[in-house]
Amino acid sequence: MGVRRLGAVSVRELVVLGTASQVPTRTRSHHASLLRWDGEGILFDPGEGAQRQLTLAGIAAADITRICLTHFHGDHALGLPGIVQRLSLDGVAHPVHAHYPAGGSEYFARLRHATPFHETAALVEHPVTEDGDLVRLPQFTLAARRLDHPVETYGYRLVEPDGRRMLPDRLAAAGVRGPDVRRLQQAGSLELDGRTVHLDDVSEPRRGQRAAFVMDTRLCPAVTDLADGADLLVIESTFLSAESDLAAESGHLTAAQAARVAAECGVRTLVLTHFSRRYDDPEAFRAEASAVFDGELVVAEDLTRVPLPRR
Amino acid sequence: MGVRRLGAVSVRELVVLGTASQVPTRTRSHHASLLRWDGEGILFDPGEGAQRQLTLAGIAAADITRICLTHFHGDHALGLPGIVQRLSLDGVAHPVHAHYPAGGSEYFARLRHATPFHETAALVEHPVTEDGDLVRLPQFTLAARRLDHPVETYGYRLVEPDGRRMLPDRLAAAGVRGPDVRRLQQAGSLELDGRTVHLDDVSEPRRGQRAAFVMDTRLCPAVTDLADGADLLVIESTFLSAESDLAAESGHLTAAQAARVAAECGVRTLVLTHFSRRYDDPEAFRAEASAVFDGELVVAEDLTRVPLPRR
Repeated sequence: MGVRRLGAVSVRELVVLGTASQVPTRTRSHHASLLRWDGEGILFDPGEGAQRQLTLAGIAAADITRICLTHFHGDHALGLPGIVQRLSLDGVAHPVHAHYPAGGSEYFARLRHATPFHETAALVEHPVTEDGDLVRLPQFTLAARRLDHPVETYGYRLVEPDGRRMLPDRLAAAGVRGPDVRRLQQAGSLELDGRTVHLDDVSEPRRGQRAAFVMDTRLCPAVTDLADGADLLVIESTFLSAESDLAAESGHLTAAQAARVAAECGVRTLVLTHFSRRYDDPEAFRAEASAVFDGELVVAEDLTRVPLPRR
Repeated sequence: MGVRRLGAVSVRELVVLGTASQVPTRTRSHHASLLRWDGEGILFDPGEGAQRQLTLAGIAAADITRICLTHFHGDHALGLPGIVQRLSLDGVAHPVHAHYPAGGSEYFARLRHATPFHETAALVEHPVTEDGDLVRLPQFTLAARRLDHPVETYGYRLVEPDGRRMLPDRLAAAGVRGPDVRRLQQAGSLELDGRTVHLDDVSEPRRGQRAAFVMDTRLCPAVTDLADGADLLVIESTFLSAESDLAAESGHLTAAQAARVAAECGVRTLVLTHFSRRYDDPEAFRAEASAVFDGELVVAEDLTRVPLPRR
């Protein structure tokens, strides 16, 4: 008996599952995030415990449609076996697509088949071999960019196609109503009482939404490429500026670096996560980031939910 | 810089880390237990999340000296990669011994090397191939018995060597005091003021403590062999009697079965754990077990601590 997803609902939000980096703490489970994008549920970097964090967040395994791994370090991948096995246990009927750095294929295989289980769910593997678009769906294009970390690492970017926002007063003036609105959107023009109404006359351009997921990495051009104009940027900020040297050495970002990227790239909502256990007070990340970024700033806690900002 | 364990302290207790079976819940993390036995810390069946549960219990990775896996199902083994990696991250200087069913060696290898990490800690593998003693230490002998579950599964039993309890009044009457007491214990007899004091004259037999760890399994003779005369029995009770058929079919025990084993084997403290998510109320397990077992009964919650009963 398969569990079916509810139909595509217009929910676009980030559900933060875990916010720790290498070592979990009393308050932070290992890193994991789920991006809900209409009918899609994209699980990014499930660290150990992601399966239970989903339950704590009220999310079903069946809500996952896609898994994106940035790299094969334990705090980003050791929750994968539990998720994979749970998909089958719950009888998830739709295929789940998995993107991961191709260089880690051997690790993916170990995690996928970590212990024996009755595999029924379809997990479709898409190893990422180079920068570029990974998949183009009606609701978004998913792209990857290589980042700068000690192991092969890719950041991800979702871009919704640009569309048009219907203008109610123009529609009313043109006499377009009810089912005709959708017909006009689909056809681009409509014959109505002997007149031709063009879509452009009753709508204005609407930029598609963009979300980026950047971890783990030093500063590099790919970070900016991924974050450019993002409505939502989820980015690691493992360290504070006092540990800049350590960050550079270990291939990580500071809160100030992440916030500067967000400011320079015109990011609207910035989500900092993946914090070193050395810091007790999350407000220190807020202070450092808000000094250089004046958009919506979220210093993530486990189970934080962040809606995509309105278009 | 290695983390050193504190010297052998006389702590004997079970630290329950997680109590869920196949699926974790809001209140139950996947199964894992740590048995602290003087200077040893034996981690049984680390399910996913065991690493963080250790932190929540205030236990350091360096407190682990031994890992025992009963079998390679996810809820008993997917926490292993996190533990293994954490031993190296924390610079644990002592070797950690790992016992697991030999038939699952391939799975052990996948879990041990699930993702790349800088391995410094020594993990010494001891695949279990048949019933018998696995290791004989001064403080206990560790033995395994094959259980009855769909995959190769072993239960474990610790037996402390029998010793002698010194009798203070007899010691005083014989004039044995201070460092002479230990000399007498070690030598078996002692020359004192021209007399010979024999250990047997000033002490009485003291049975060594026994602890057994039984999961996952149907009822079978090995369950009784493991539990026989145990001071502490940690045993799965995935189901209640209403689901006896399901228990038998899936290779599990009910609370009533586990409690009957404990009653028949003269167990002193019975710890029920590894509960199906289908049950909301742990008191149902208590009710079923206490109807047939009148010793100390613990229906485990995550982070429950159970001292071994006094000798």
